[in-house]
Amino acid sequence: MVVSALRRVLPAEDLVYFGDTAHLPYGNKSPAAVCRFVRQIVRFLLPMEPKHVVIACNTATALAMSEIAVEFPQLSISGVIEPGARAAVAAAGAMRVPAIGVIATEATVRSKAYERAIFRRRNMARVMLRPTPLLVPMIEEGRTGDDPLVETALRQYLQSMILRKVDVLVLGCTHYPLLKGAIAKVIGSRVRLIDSAEQCAQDVARRLKRKGLLCGEVIAPGEESSSDDTAAMDGPEPTTGSLRTFVTDDPDRFAFLASRFLGMEIERPTLVEPGDDLAGEVLETVAQPPLRAAG
Amino acid sequence: MVVSALRRVLPAEDLVYFGDTAHLPYGNKSPAAVCRFVRQIVRFLLPMEPKHVVIACNTATALAMSEIAVEFPQLSISGVIEPGARAAVAAAGAMRVPAIGVIATEATVRSKAYERAIFRRRNMARVMLRPTPLLVPMIEEGRTGDDPLVETALRQYLQSMILRKVDVLVLGCTHYPLLKGAIAKVIGSRVRLIDSAEQCAQDVARRLKRKGLLCGEVIAPGEESSSDDTAAMDGPEPTTGSLRTFVTDDPDRFAFLASRFLGMEIERPTLVEPGDDLAGEVLETVAQPPLRAAG
Repeated sequence: MVVSALRRVLPAEDLVYFGDTAHLPYGNKSPAAVCRFVRQIVRFLLPMEPKHVVIACNTATALAMSEIAVEFPQLSISGVIEPGARAAVAAAGAMRVPAIGVIATEATVRSKAYERAIFRRRNMARVMLRPTPLLVPMIEEGRTGDDPLVETALRQYLQSMILRKVDVLVLGCTHYPLLKGAIAKVIGSRVRLIDSAEQCAQDVARRLKRKGLLCGEVIAPGEESSSDDTAAMDGPEPTTGSLRTFVTDDPDRFAFLASRFLGMEIERPTLVEPGDDLAGEVLETVAQPPLRAAG
Repeated sequence: MVVSALRRVLPAEDLVYFGDTAHLPYGNKSPAAVCRFVRQIVRFLLPMEPKHVVIACNTATALAMSEIAVEFPQLSISGVIEPGARAAVAAAGAMRVPAIGVIATEATVRSKAYERAIFRRRNMARVMLRPTPLLVPMIEEGRTGDDPLVETALRQYLQSMILRKVDVLVLGCTHYPLLKGAIAKVIGSRVRLIDSAEQCAQDVARRLKRKGLLCGEVIAPGEESSSDDTAAMDGPEPTTGSLRTFVTDDPDRFAFLASRFLGMEIERPTLVEPGDDLAGEVLETVAQPPLRAAG
């Protein structure tokens, strides 16, 4: 979902997407394991000389971001949690003690990364986190918001947030925006929903602009919760940047899921054998074009 | 679940359990990836000189069993699918064209391993497979058969099997017996349920006996579907064999889940760093006792 947001916001940028399908899901793994996986991916991307790297996954951001930033100080890098937390605090506006909810994977919740990112910006807030581990497998099974099982799961997961009257709800996993409509229906239209993928793309655009590294125009969003509709009404900007994808397992399954997630066909991803020597094995394949990798 | 069945059936055997928690779930991965993971594990176990190795997972058996058997011809090895298929065919008994259903992971279904194993034994049968990818994450989230979400999922997944009147249903994933009661309730008491984990343990006992390699007695089961109760009534045999566990991620989470799955506390598993040199890193740790590994 971050890729489709980046494509929409930065249509002229060349993107490289790396999907670690051999090791997914990250959502119930340990910080040590997720750091190791992310480190391998960053090492793989480095020879492409990316102008920016996005950790486009809440769990990976929560568990590996700070370690990776320290290990690769030369790298311009960002994640999805800071932009999501910033947008949540902004959405809370002038409320005295806003109630901010976050739904996320088990590992993201356990990491307390969202609490830290929110409280750093605003110390008067009630923050509630809820792990919602079934939503990703439900989405990957092809279920949509009108599936009774999805609705039942959302009612269970969101019940305590409804009772405790959250004002803002962060969709703290990049898959969850696919269920945005169903989530809004269950939690009520009063609650502002924050799409961490969308916020992440806006954040990348700001960072590139600040450094004078933008290719082409930034496509401005509407307000958070209606940005999809607004973008659609304006007509999509023609995408001139390239998109290359790499996966560690099953390129066909990935291409199938991606077409459903991104709402567009992608070229068959390149398979990278996972393992300690990830980078070594594929350097040749990717050494040709001087890519500006962003995802 | 295979471990608890092995402990019950072969209480005097020393067991080594290897849980590949860094790479799980296998259920939606490719044959190439799963073969690579299983190969690493077998290489890790080899120095312990196991008298038998069980691939105690339906997906791994379906995707990797035949390759691994060819690669390690010196190894005595078995899986969970052949015993499950054999028991299903036996349960169908004298029916002219029995209808045999199998619920399993996406990858197990796609492999057609159950169809092959059933049709090899019986060519007049209707075989129906259904991927049920949400059951494992539901069980790992701690949900039990009385959870409304589990019941709704089971009704959806089993609907076509109920309509097409299956006679026998194979629980083709070693997690599923934890939902046996709920599955029986949804599919009806007329349908014989086959627990592939239980059948696998019986199969290992037969193999060891045939080779004269048994330690102690084999605890005979009751009939398939009531074996748990029968064993309980007989009183559990004192377990004298040891159990050592290794995992590739998060020993604490594994110990927590295992205590729920096995109904017993286990010692904290030893963490093995996953990667290509899995074996090399941990040989020292396990070289001490001459273990007879079985799982």
